Amino acid sequence: MQIARVIGTVVATQKHRKFEGAKLLLVQPLNMDDTPRGTALLAVDGVGAGVHEKVLVVLEGRAAGEALGKKAAPVDAAIIGIIDEVDFDGSL
Amino acid sequence: MQIARVIGTVVATQKHRKFEGAKLLLVQPLNMDDTPRGTALLAVDGVGAGVHEKVLVVLEGRAAGEALGKKAAPVDAAIIGIIDEVDFDGSL
Amino acid sequence: MQIARVIGTVVATQKHRKFEGAKLLLVQPLNMDDTPRGTALLAVDGVGAGVHEKVLVVLEGRAAGEALGKKAAPVDAAIIGIIDEVDFDGSL
Amino acid sequence: MQIARVIGTVVATQKHRKFEGAKLLLVQPLNMDDTPRGTALLAVDGVGAGVHEKVLVVLEGRAAGEALGKKAAPVDAAIIGIIDEVDFDGSL
Amino acid sequence: MQIARVIGTVVATQKHRKFEGAKLLLVQPLNMDDTPRGTALLAVDGVGAGVHEKVLVVLEGRAAGEALGKKAAPVDAAIIGIIDEVDFDGSL
Repeated sequence: MQIARVIGTVVATQKHRKFEGAKLLLVQPLNMDDTPRGTALLAVDGVGAGVHEKVLVVLEGRAAGEALGKKAAPVDAAIIGIIDEVDFDGSL
Repeated sequence: MQIARVIGTVVATQKHRKFEGAKLLLVQPLNMDDTPRGTALLAVDGVGAGVHEKVLVVLEGRAAGEALGKKAAPVDAAIIGIIDEVDFDGSL
Repeated sequence: MQIARVIGTVVATQKHRKFEGAKLLLVQPLNMDDTPRGTALLAVDGVGAGVHEKVLVVLEGRAAGEALGKKAAPVDAAIIGIIDEVDFDGSL
Repeated sequence: MQIARVIGTVVATQKHRKFEGAKLLLVQPLNMDDTPRGTALLAVDGVGAGVHEKVLVVLEGRAAGEALGKKAAPVDAAIIGIIDEVDFDGSL
Repeated sequence: MQIARVIGTVVATQKHRKFEGAKLLLVQPLNMDDTPRGTALLAVDGVGAGVHEKVLVVLEGRAAGEALGKKAAPVDAAIIGIIDEVDFDGSL
């Protein structure tokens, strides 16, 4: 799983029917010092996250479908938690 | 999921039988500022997208098969939505 | 799916029993201008492709197993089509 | 599987219900000489690992769900072993 | 699938119970000219490979589990063949 920040939303009125009802958020993966890492991507929201929040993102289709509660959903990334705190030892 | 633009088509008369009927489009992943990111790839079309359109692409086999409506299809990427609008806060 | 060119073959007499009978080809992923992109990889052949041909490669285990017609095959890449023509608008 | 070191923990009180009870650790992938490689990521703990330990990490959803003992868990990485010793011939 | 060389072994006495009995080898992916490519990784052995041998590695969880003969195994890479010979046309 990756640490990311929700930075936006996407509107797609014409979409796959199995995708209806899914809330889609734009998330930016972060480095340990909270700087952006790589490109932002789209994830379905499985926990009610909002823009600005630091979240836990799972990057895999089966897992993302499970997060959405629809095994057959055509998704490959999902937000599965809102991060309160990260503790780490940078010297390791 | 990734944001991409449909930039072309591919013709493959000799193909795997489970792949028959699938419309294959060439899509270019985009950065947030709509510049190209990485190499173009091929995705099956699950929503009736056309060349020039900005689309939502799922990059994973199970998910792409679901998008095509054929669980057993040998595919690894699919277009699952046509993007109307992307709203994001670049300062985050 | 990726566009690639078949550039060779691999001989492996000692192999996993579920892998018996699979034809294994060495394929080089290509950029849109047909220059090589990254490293060559091995894919099982699902369509009867030959060396020099431009092919459509699926890069995912489930999908590759489907292409081989063996769900349980331990494979992660397969050739699923022979490309006749690629049409794209490079200005997009 | 990858060799990594556990470097921290993450607290996420609001999380996906299928994720309850999973212990989440921050792991840093390592090169063969134990220097950090790429960015740290989050993995569920399947073996009772602790901070500072060198571990074996599986990076794939299905496998990580199996490690957690919950096939339907929305996870994509898991710690599946604690490494005692790595023997390798660097000249190969 | 990738071409790699077995360069070592890993000892992990404390490991996930579904992982018991799996022989774990350290493999170094190779370029076409047999130079190392990227970082070494760990793969379960499905064919009885030994250190120094050039092998065929499958990088995907489902496939690796199949190679191990345990669908539910928490693994993401497996050795599925020992390579005798690679023939390729470098001019393509």
